Amino acid sequence: MSDKYAPLPEHKFSFGLWTVSNRGRDPFGSEVRPPLAPVDAVKMLAQVGAWGVNLHDNDLVPIDATPAERDRIVKEFKQACDSHGIVVPMATVTLFFDPAFRDGAFTANDPAVRAYALQKTLRAMDIGAELGAKIFVLWGGREGTETDACRRADDAVKRLRHAIDYVCEYSIAKGYGYTFAMEAKPNEPRGDIYMATTGNYLGLIPTLAHPEMVGVNPEVAHEQMAGLNFTHAVAQAWEAGKLFHIDLNDQVPGRYDQDFRFGAANPKSAFFLVKFLEDVGYAGPRHFDAHAYRTENYDGVKDFARGCMRTYLILKEKAARWNADAEIQAIVKEIHEPSMPTPAEATYSPAHLATLLGHTFDRGTLAAKNLPYERLDQLTVEVLLGTR
Amino acid sequence: MSDKYAPLPEHKFSFGLWTVSNRGRDPFGSEVRPPLAPVDAVKMLAQVGAWGVNLHDNDLVPIDATPAERDRIVKEFKQACDSHGIVVPMATVTLFFDPAFRDGAFTANDPAVRAYALQKTLRAMDIGAELGAKIFVLWGGREGTETDACRRADDAVKRLRHAIDYVCEYSIAKGYGYTFAMEAKPNEPRGDIYMATTGNYLGLIPTLAHPEMVGVNPEVAHEQMAGLNFTHAVAQAWEAGKLFHIDLNDQVPGRYDQDFRFGAANPKSAFFLVKFLEDVGYAGPRHFDAHAYRTENYDGVKDFARGCMRTYLILKEKAARWNADAEIQAIVKEIHEPSMPTPAEATYSPAHLATLLGHTFDRGTLAAKNLPYERLDQLTVEVLLGTR
Amino acid sequence: MSDKYAPLPEHKFSFGLWTVSNRGRDPFGSEVRPPLAPVDAVKMLAQVGAWGVNLHDNDLVPIDATPAERDRIVKEFKQACDSHGIVVPMATVTLFFDPAFRDGAFTANDPAVRAYALQKTLRAMDIGAELGAKIFVLWGGREGTETDACRRADDAVKRLRHAIDYVCEYSIAKGYGYTFAMEAKPNEPRGDIYMATTGNYLGLIPTLAHPEMVGVNPEVAHEQMAGLNFTHAVAQAWEAGKLFHIDLNDQVPGRYDQDFRFGAANPKSAFFLVKFLEDVGYAGPRHFDAHAYRTENYDGVKDFARGCMRTYLILKEKAARWNADAEIQAIVKEIHEPSMPTPAEATYSPAHLATLLGHTFDRGTLAAKNLPYERLDQLTVEVLLGTR
Amino acid sequence: MSDKYAPLPEHKFSFGLWTVSNRGRDPFGSEVRPPLAPVDAVKMLAQVGAWGVNLHDNDLVPIDATPAERDRIVKEFKQACDSHGIVVPMATVTLFFDPAFRDGAFTANDPAVRAYALQKTLRAMDIGAELGAKIFVLWGGREGTETDACRRADDAVKRLRHAIDYVCEYSIAKGYGYTFAMEAKPNEPRGDIYMATTGNYLGLIPTLAHPEMVGVNPEVAHEQMAGLNFTHAVAQAWEAGKLFHIDLNDQVPGRYDQDFRFGAANPKSAFFLVKFLEDVGYAGPRHFDAHAYRTENYDGVKDFARGCMRTYLILKEKAARWNADAEIQAIVKEIHEPSMPTPAEATYSPAHLATLLGHTFDRGTLAAKNLPYERLDQLTVEVLLGTR
Repeated sequence: MSDKYAPLPEHKFSFGLWTVSNRGRDPFGSEVRPPLAPVDAVKMLAQVGAWGVNLHDNDLVPIDATPAERDRIVKEFKQACDSHGIVVPMATVTLFFDPAFRDGAFTANDPAVRAYALQKTLRAMDIGAELGAKIFVLWGGREGTETDACRRADDAVKRLRHAIDYVCEYSIAKGYGYTFAMEAKPNEPRGDIYMATTGNYLGLIPTLAHPEMVGVNPEVAHEQMAGLNFTHAVAQAWEAGKLFHIDLNDQVPGRYDQDFRFGAANPKSAFFLVKFLEDVGYAGPRHFDAHAYRTENYDGVKDFARGCMRTYLILKEKAARWNADAEIQAIVKEIHEPSMPTPAEATYSPAHLATLLGHTFDRGTLAAKNLPYERLDQLTVEVLLGTR
Repeated sequence: MSDKYAPLPEHKFSFGLWTVSNRGRDPFGSEVRPPLAPVDAVKMLAQVGAWGVNLHDNDLVPIDATPAERDRIVKEFKQACDSHGIVVPMATVTLFFDPAFRDGAFTANDPAVRAYALQKTLRAMDIGAELGAKIFVLWGGREGTETDACRRADDAVKRLRHAIDYVCEYSIAKGYGYTFAMEAKPNEPRGDIYMATTGNYLGLIPTLAHPEMVGVNPEVAHEQMAGLNFTHAVAQAWEAGKLFHIDLNDQVPGRYDQDFRFGAANPKSAFFLVKFLEDVGYAGPRHFDAHAYRTENYDGVKDFARGCMRTYLILKEKAARWNADAEIQAIVKEIHEPSMPTPAEATYSPAHLATLLGHTFDRGTLAAKNLPYERLDQLTVEVLLGTR
Repeated sequence: MSDKYAPLPEHKFSFGLWTVSNRGRDPFGSEVRPPLAPVDAVKMLAQVGAWGVNLHDNDLVPIDATPAERDRIVKEFKQACDSHGIVVPMATVTLFFDPAFRDGAFTANDPAVRAYALQKTLRAMDIGAELGAKIFVLWGGREGTETDACRRADDAVKRLRHAIDYVCEYSIAKGYGYTFAMEAKPNEPRGDIYMATTGNYLGLIPTLAHPEMVGVNPEVAHEQMAGLNFTHAVAQAWEAGKLFHIDLNDQVPGRYDQDFRFGAANPKSAFFLVKFLEDVGYAGPRHFDAHAYRTENYDGVKDFARGCMRTYLILKEKAARWNADAEIQAIVKEIHEPSMPTPAEATYSPAHLATLLGHTFDRGTLAAKNLPYERLDQLTVEVLLGTR
Repeated sequence: MSDKYAPLPEHKFSFGLWTVSNRGRDPFGSEVRPPLAPVDAVKMLAQVGAWGVNLHDNDLVPIDATPAERDRIVKEFKQACDSHGIVVPMATVTLFFDPAFRDGAFTANDPAVRAYALQKTLRAMDIGAELGAKIFVLWGGREGTETDACRRADDAVKRLRHAIDYVCEYSIAKGYGYTFAMEAKPNEPRGDIYMATTGNYLGLIPTLAHPEMVGVNPEVAHEQMAGLNFTHAVAQAWEAGKLFHIDLNDQVPGRYDQDFRFGAANPKSAFFLVKFLEDVGYAGPRHFDAHAYRTENYDGVKDFARGCMRTYLILKEKAARWNADAEIQAIVKEIHEPSMPTPAEATYSPAHLATLLGHTFDRGTLAAKNLPYERLDQLTVEVLLGTR
């Protein structure tokens, strides 16, 4: 492979501990890969050229660990990260694996579960802070229902808000400096999950006590499970100043959560995503929340990890090529030109209103404007396929 | 049929002019029903017992009408409404039918199209105001793409915001007293539509100049096209004070926009929706944005319209029955009780934090909490099926 | 609850051992229920009123059992079934759980895996035969791909045919008297599974060496995952004489495999299914391949099992009511009458051809035929909701 | 553009008359392009380098044409084809556009509609035969339901069989030499369409009177609407000797019927399809059943048509490159080798059975087999992206 696609720290490629350590268990089959110790996962990430590692509390510290075990484990992990030159940009908490959370965590009907979930999150924040993380992701994997008979859905919203407000205060009180990135998902493992799309979180955030501390962590697979255009969701988040983190992987629409290698399901939609992130200058981590096929051994896991980063860099190069393509740029210029004289776009004013209402538009002229989008898309396909 | 399900004005059932006047054209077939004049549609709605009628500008006034024609048409329509006791609670604008809008309206690349879309919307607001409408719906049916090469998606967001801000100012300036209800849709007729879900609009609204004037108009079919739980979206909007209008119909997930009779595709999800709206006391119109099968004549259109309202009222009665069912309520009570002593839920304070962090939770106890949701859902099914 | 919906042996309700023994593990969480021994599952099924139990080889006999252990286990299980009056109508084989099958079984690339899969299936047939099963289901859960680079898809078809032909010969040679029921699924746990729909198997069967021995086992969830109309698939299978078994459960389209309680996701589509099965006189087992929510304990598992059967019987009663409803039947009669005189329907003959080609049809008359399907569907909804 | 991707007659690229003549009407908008006369469409196809044109009867001959008009139109069209060097490989019939077919054609409840549909099909076969077509496609666009209350689904199967048997006899009687290619679709314009997938037709064909005359016409979009792997469906059809025709276009899963330019939605799945067709030596037409975006004028339609063919040829070249790549082929070889000694694969015989049952398999060895599918897929992606 060409060196020009080798990952560098400046690319900010990170992987979840849980991704490279994924053992291939699924609803219809047992584990196929032996356990991978967190320090060995860090070593592997260093080998493949990653920049960072992210983790849930229990990816690293067993849920039953004593405080002393917890301290030792975190310390050793930190040392391993340091010695391999791997940073920990993001931490999160598992509020979904243990049977205690089988009806949710922050939104569970049992008040004791809600309190426990909050306590567990605060302790996960401690771990993350100790490891240097400044981004805290919250994915409410069990915050949902199989039957809406169990709870009023607006109560779930209120409970969720309460929890987020609380963790923001805790971060302030402790001086952790966290931003929180909320991760949406429409379903699985619950029949329906509250806050189904990134948009739902963008709607919740302004209702929080500290909206400035909270943004989103859109995930390719989660949006595409619902058949939605992921780049559109990312763009709205970016435009609102809320793109605090991103989870890259791939997914065929309308299916179980596949978490495929980045670009593996649909390289064209991956291209538009990379192009957007690079065009706007997104400066955060490029986190791969994916895992290797269950057919792989750990050599295959490395192939998988390398493939994620390499495909990103290939697509980044193609985005630059697209931007530099004269024919493409000529079309882009043409399609943005007005078809006929028109009042300048401006915010409302009585004067502008008068001009606008007084203007005569010719619908035939508007409809005749040349918009060669087929040609533009075909050129895009050819940049993607490398024949241009 | 029993009289107890007869529609009354207090139920606030409304239909779009375009719904009962739908002539059955689709991508693979021509019209099957003759044109229905707006005044005849109003008459039909009165016959079936509806309370209100909604309209796009061009449902009533042809796009090429002269000002004099426009005035005459609106006046006659108002008289027809008055004589039939039908109100016009909501108006909207078609920014999708004419070829001028083939690349969108507020987000089109052509600045002249954007200006024309704005002008057309202002004039539609005039019509609505004249007819007494206080809710103005905006559905951006063509605001989207088939290829993301054509425009940066964040530019679309900015353009959309500009337009919404403008129309808010216009409503203020004219004293129309409108609230605006934004209607999301994931795709069709565009490959992807911006603001794919109700959540996306909830996220956009707080970034507007007049967020207090703008809410959402969730539509069953549009959310279910993406396989999302509609009641969850409605609940979030309601909880945020943003449920300004609602479009009732039905839809099988993952398909073309079907706009079926309310409750026809899935009566169980329709039940949870009606139950939510009635439980929270939603006081706005129950608008049916649906149309009769293409196999129907206008008698069938009446059957369709009657069916929408009747099913709503049957489900409303079932919701009351559910709330009154002792066994169901006992389960609802039980599932909300704490499994073990737990710190009271409260906003963050140092004292509460200390209590929370000092509390010991027993995960086994949390996991053992009785949550008879299968039983609860089965009882719900039996209320729905009328065997309880 | 009323006794009239109590399950009886004549209803032929069966459950898989794996369904009531399901422990609630999913991709994001560990087991929530303790193990349930096969004999205890049989006892539970007797308690709730089921007629039969089905099993995979390894639901009963551990994959590593010695021949002596196997014999003892099967014998004890048979005794438990007998003492509880539970029959074993169907058996199957797990070719998906063990890591050996991570790339499939009959279609795996490794010839040794294919041979082992065959051997394992023959031994599972021995177990089933010993327990009295006459139906053998084959679900190729791992027969698929994440990348089509790994194998030519037509090779997979050939390999699958080879295996089915082999097991048919084995059944003949041993005198087991099995019929084989092939179960399709579009995806999960593989990215894509070969033989994605029931239709694909209906297409494969005629190419087998013993097509008369092989039919299908359609599953509600598997067809609805792809958004398909399950009743249509069942009807085609029935009409072809190939409905050898059926898996009842429920599923929202376009999602992970939910395996909900029968009728829980969409009672209307469940109604049409039950109505079809009862109308045509399907005489085979009504097998529930579903499992309780992960929020349940074993009392909830019983609620779940009872709910499956009870909903079936309620819908069966409603189907009879639909058939007896005079208004409904009048519409059914009307919609099947010719709109105008027309040549009698007949197989091709020169004489019929001459008549047909000589006939003049009036398209306007054809298009004016009254088809009150909205009314018919609304009446159906009201039968379903119990208001009629 | 490079000449090496120029379409040639040997590539057998065909377009439907209805594809390049598509005027951009959709459910939410009127036509955007002026009518294109059939002879002008042929001229355009010649300009862009196509080999063939396909047509529905009414694409060419208006439904109300007199016999004399019909004869003149067909004759002139044949002359236009001849003079432009365009062949007519396939013909079909529209049984979905006219209101007469609003409840289906061959499966309609009205016997007069069924008879008219048959008559119309026979006359469409006459047109096709006169133009030299040897493939006749049948797509039952209206053969379906919005409510299953209207008809028993097995009756629909019987009616469909009757019609297919009849048209086969007609072809024999007239000596037309047709093969029939059945085209499946899951839904749209009907709520559900019978024979939802290619598999369903593969299942129906063996039950016909002349199965040897009938195969399938799989369409990318129709299978992908249901989220199914199109190449798998094509492979099964091919393996059964039933791939009589193919409709190429593109489609995002779980949406309305998009009919995008070939390769536009997902170039990777298009790659696997092209690779399959070329690897097996499919010799039939490569028919593009797609249309240009509604944003285009007729220059854009040409861009669209050129893009379909060009992308096919680029992917064909990449398929050859994949086959010639040494690293890829080494992996392909490795993954097909047995992990351990195993009985040779053979049809059933008592001797083989004895060998198979006597063999000891080591599950650990089977599970340890190296299957570097991540690497293989990444190499595939890089061939696709042109970096290899």
